[in-house]
Amino acid sequence: MALPFEFTGHPAQLLRVGPGFSLAAQPCHAAPGFAGKKAAGAAALAARAPLLAQLQEQLFAESRFGGKRSLLLILQAMDTAGKGGIVSHVVGLVDPQGVQLTSFKAPSEEEKAHDFLWRVRPAAPRPGMLGVFDRSHYEDVLIHRVHGWADGPELDRRYEAINAFEAELAEAGTTIVKIMLNISPEEQLERLTSRLHDPTKYWKYSPTDLDERAFWPAYMESYQRVFDKTSTGHAPWYVVPADKKWYARLAVQEILIHALESLKLQWPSGDFDLARERLRLSKA
Amino acid sequence: MALPFEFTGHPAQLLRVGPGFSLAAQPCHAAPGFAGKKAAGAAALAARAPLLAQLQEQLFAESRFGGKRSLLLILQAMDTAGKGGIVSHVVGLVDPQGVQLTSFKAPSEEEKAHDFLWRVRPAAPRPGMLGVFDRSHYEDVLIHRVHGWADGPELDRRYEAINAFEAELAEAGTTIVKIMLNISPEEQLERLTSRLHDPTKYWKYSPTDLDERAFWPAYMESYQRVFDKTSTGHAPWYVVPADKKWYARLAVQEILIHALESLKLQWPSGDFDLARERLRLSKA
Repeated sequence: MALPFEFTGHPAQLLRVGPGFSLAAQPCHAAPGFAGKKAAGAAALAARAPLLAQLQEQLFAESRFGGKRSLLLILQAMDTAGKGGIVSHVVGLVDPQGVQLTSFKAPSEEEKAHDFLWRVRPAAPRPGMLGVFDRSHYEDVLIHRVHGWADGPELDRRYEAINAFEAELAEAGTTIVKIMLNISPEEQLERLTSRLHDPTKYWKYSPTDLDERAFWPAYMESYQRVFDKTSTGHAPWYVVPADKKWYARLAVQEILIHALESLKLQWPSGDFDLARERLRLSKA
Repeated sequence: MALPFEFTGHPAQLLRVGPGFSLAAQPCHAAPGFAGKKAAGAAALAARAPLLAQLQEQLFAESRFGGKRSLLLILQAMDTAGKGGIVSHVVGLVDPQGVQLTSFKAPSEEEKAHDFLWRVRPAAPRPGMLGVFDRSHYEDVLIHRVHGWADGPELDRRYEAINAFEAELAEAGTTIVKIMLNISPEEQLERLTSRLHDPTKYWKYSPTDLDERAFWPAYMESYQRVFDKTSTGHAPWYVVPADKKWYARLAVQEILIHALESLKLQWPSGDFDLARERLRLSKA
């Protein structure tokens, strides 16, 4: 867990949701485990990116020789918290060939006609892949609880179904990392306002963002419930302070590096006779 | 078509396959249209990347408001020519959320039981997306001609089917850019050798690479035939010298920028009442 630069602690330890976790007690503007400012954070992000890229390539390479392991990053957050920025600035630094990204929108009529996990299962990462869920099956407990679209017993059934589903994935070789980007309502207001004053960002704004904002406390209760019910040993949640975008990106990158390092990845030796192939090549 | 830096001509013009094109007459080691060396090429690639990223974002944004347009980059080449490098170093510089990458491997039994375009059609890019085919339906004419797996009439049928398929895509709003990375056999030998002397690259080597290498002249004939039959106004081929990786990346980036600029993309204005939303926000 040794980390270079201005790190003073590991985000994978400091931000992990454990027993007794209280979302309300978490700061949104802090940078736990990092003593530097924005510039130092950006430098650390860039400096550590090649390691993340190498680990991802090793995971991918392993799958070419029968390896079944994969990584799944689940991103959840209030609007504007920076999920997209994580995808472009952290996931975007690894080879796109090893990334399997799924953005879950409001379900279609066909999707609604099935169980809520129906559309999620086929999106699970293939062997060797870094899967990313931009939103996920957690919408079906988060927003459904906020708006009362599912009652208590149904929500309980879903938490259990989610735990069972994620246990299956883990059993099949998928390392699961669940991230909640924790933005403050004040910071969200600033970001929404900036979207409405920059013509290159109008397209990212939707009036419903503001509608949902009115339910902020209910969403926080919903998240707390999700953490209580679904932060498991095989699929832990991490709550990442997100008011500083640079910190959130850095923290998520380190959490991913940590998850991949735990797999003890190696470069495959290939399934051919090295000496023989070198000889063939020398005569080619 | 104005280009900064050491450009002396536009790759989209210089490398485009037109009437009378001869693959055998094309240099592999040259850098057409660029007067600089490797360092200048890398600098130009980095300097132009934000423009490509912005154009891609505009294409994506347009689709959120009903836009149907998309871009499809088709990559074909001999082994080691650098398709993967184009994906990671050119496509990898745009937001992964706007990229839809499909790597076509040897077809499965199920795929073989269908027409060769059966597996390709569903991989066409969705509106707003930058689709990338790493190999493609062209394998079904290239390699099949080399190994005699399809006879002359069948190959002719496939060229026609490909042209009809690509015309359909173009009609539906997809701009198609077809790239052949043109590596020399000497350079391939060097790259294969380096893969066999670097344990982090063993996994990329396959003995079949060397088997196929023996058919080099037949492959070049197959490519020539493909260019003769399928370089159309709506889906042109570009043959990119690929012995210098830095040049190939730079050239493909400029060809993509050129294709996207031809779409005259604009930032969407959004589908809401700007003044009203600003007022709502100010009270939020």
